[in-house]
Amino acid sequence: VRKEEMEKMTAYMDTLTKPQGSLGRLEELAVKLAGIQGKPDVSRPAVLVFAGDHGVTAEGVSLYGKEVTQLMVHNFVQGGAAINVLAEEIGASVTVTDVGVAGDTLFGSVDAKVKQGTGNIAREAAMTTGEASLAIDAGIEASERAIAQGANLIIPGEMGIGNTTATSALLAAWTGASPEEVTGSGTGVTGEQLQLKQEVIGMALERASWESTLEAFAEIGGLEIAAMSGAMIEAAKNRTPVLIDGFIASIAAMGAVRLAPFTADYFIFGHLSAEAGHKLALETLKAEPLLELKMRLGEGTGAAAAYPLVSMAAAIADRMATFADLGIKQ
Amino acid sequence: VRKEEMEKMTAYMDTLTKPQGSLGRLEELAVKLAGIQGKPDVSRPAVLVFAGDHGVTAEGVSLYGKEVTQLMVHNFVQGGAAINVLAEEIGASVTVTDVGVAGDTLFGSVDAKVKQGTGNIAREAAMTTGEASLAIDAGIEASERAIAQGANLIIPGEMGIGNTTATSALLAAWTGASPEEVTGSGTGVTGEQLQLKQEVIGMALERASWESTLEAFAEIGGLEIAAMSGAMIEAAKNRTPVLIDGFIASIAAMGAVRLAPFTADYFIFGHLSAEAGHKLALETLKAEPLLELKMRLGEGTGAAAAYPLVSMAAAIADRMATFADLGIKQ
Repeated sequence: VRKEEMEKMTAYMDTLTKPQGSLGRLEELAVKLAGIQGKPDVSRPAVLVFAGDHGVTAEGVSLYGKEVTQLMVHNFVQGGAAINVLAEEIGASVTVTDVGVAGDTLFGSVDAKVKQGTGNIAREAAMTTGEASLAIDAGIEASERAIAQGANLIIPGEMGIGNTTATSALLAAWTGASPEEVTGSGTGVTGEQLQLKQEVIGMALERASWESTLEAFAEIGGLEIAAMSGAMIEAAKNRTPVLIDGFIASIAAMGAVRLAPFTADYFIFGHLSAEAGHKLALETLKAEPLLELKMRLGEGTGAAAAYPLVSMAAAIADRMATFADLGIKQ
Repeated sequence: VRKEEMEKMTAYMDTLTKPQGSLGRLEELAVKLAGIQGKPDVSRPAVLVFAGDHGVTAEGVSLYGKEVTQLMVHNFVQGGAAINVLAEEIGASVTVTDVGVAGDTLFGSVDAKVKQGTGNIAREAAMTTGEASLAIDAGIEASERAIAQGANLIIPGEMGIGNTTATSALLAAWTGASPEEVTGSGTGVTGEQLQLKQEVIGMALERASWESTLEAFAEIGGLEIAAMSGAMIEAAKNRTPVLIDGFIASIAAMGAVRLAPFTADYFIFGHLSAEAGHKLALETLKAEPLLELKMRLGEGTGAAAAYPLVSMAAAIADRMATFADLGIKQ
């Protein structure tokens, strides 16, 4: 990122018709955008939803069956999901990329299917490292296409029944935290089922071994999680800000930073999720999200909810009067 | 508010294609709007900025001189202030009402001037109770006009150099808190000047006596604060949600609730301000704001920043697919 642009924007903020610093985090956002983009412009946000299935659902870790992933892809394509409604509110395009849904690739989604869902990570590897690379590539290509079409802010989202299990396992793998510390209720599991989920995550961590980040993705998985990491890296490479959603997106961000450390400078964190483990993930990433609204849906919804604040920051940098405009000497 | 509509919306939220409760506070907002409006619709937000001067600036409680109030009204009318930029972002109209700016009423603002600024509350009453009534009426009329023109959500904002001093004094008057507990840095006073501000607030509280809420407004003042209370009451009377900005708007909300307790049900709190005293005000009002972005500007900016979340809540209630739409039995 460009330090001089950040310094220029910091100084410019103090010339605007308001007490110094009185727009708080909106000013910080304007400075961050200046570092990334030069002139802040996030007028064409693109939501990239990646979908994949998880073999670990066979262990009973989720309230919903695997088939719901495909049904939700159908819902995204039809425009009826929460992320569609919020994307419409913020004027964002929505692209759905199938990186590993069990079943046919639905019309209206991008076919980048690596395999028919991951292996059951409690008992086997999620995928090969070759497959993990392909999933990351699918994310890279999705960002590349969106940016080529004019997108100037990327919101990676996901859908995959069972994916909080894989996400929690990745968080434990990358931080050394225990299954208890990283496991939350996902779509709503409680009591004995939550305990089972912790045990399953423990089994996966015991079974698997990895050295590289790519090997961790392969062992513990998440085709759609790896794809999100790829989308983030490609956006950063193109000096495009990435608005990070909740728990799963934050772990994908962690993966992206492990693979390409420079990406961290391009992240804006949208929402502190109600999912256990997200706080730990954000602390590890030294991130302070803009919102805390008890959302825990994923799909990119928490990031979409935060988007208007990013847009407002850019607008302030662009359109407010200065004290000089009002004829006031500072 | 209509309890049956709230219960219906609560049940409806659980039929939408998402895990139950997973949209967190957006769902709570949808239920709140249903209680207020029946079918949630906040598509035509109106920002009502009230401006007035404060005689207490003679004590040196503010970083800026009194003349800045008029200059900022000029800025609002020209469209260059922070609230203009944020209002444009959210598609809101902006109306500026002069209830007591020292000087001529500027072209482009509504002339409802009660007097040329308040008295110096450290040494005299801010205004008479008759003048306080006129200020409240100005707010009532501003809301009435906006709603007649189609507004379906009201954002009251303010401008008045010195008005955090009056606001802190009102908060102390209505909660029994000490000057130290309610006094913050306003536009940026620190050190000795902050201590002076506390002393001035202490002088006002010692000098003044009041029984009714109207008398408190008259003694301690804020023509624009009283006007905001009026705007809130009129909006509530018309079953129109009111999005509350930061510290000053919250004290106006407190005044409105004291004058007309039913108004409390129509409030949505936008932003926890960095101004000391706001937390106490929100606790007293049992309010939980949507955002916390270290903003401390006023004008309605914190509420405008929160508006997209309210709009998203209405959109979710209106446009998301249900499980039945996807052919899933619940």
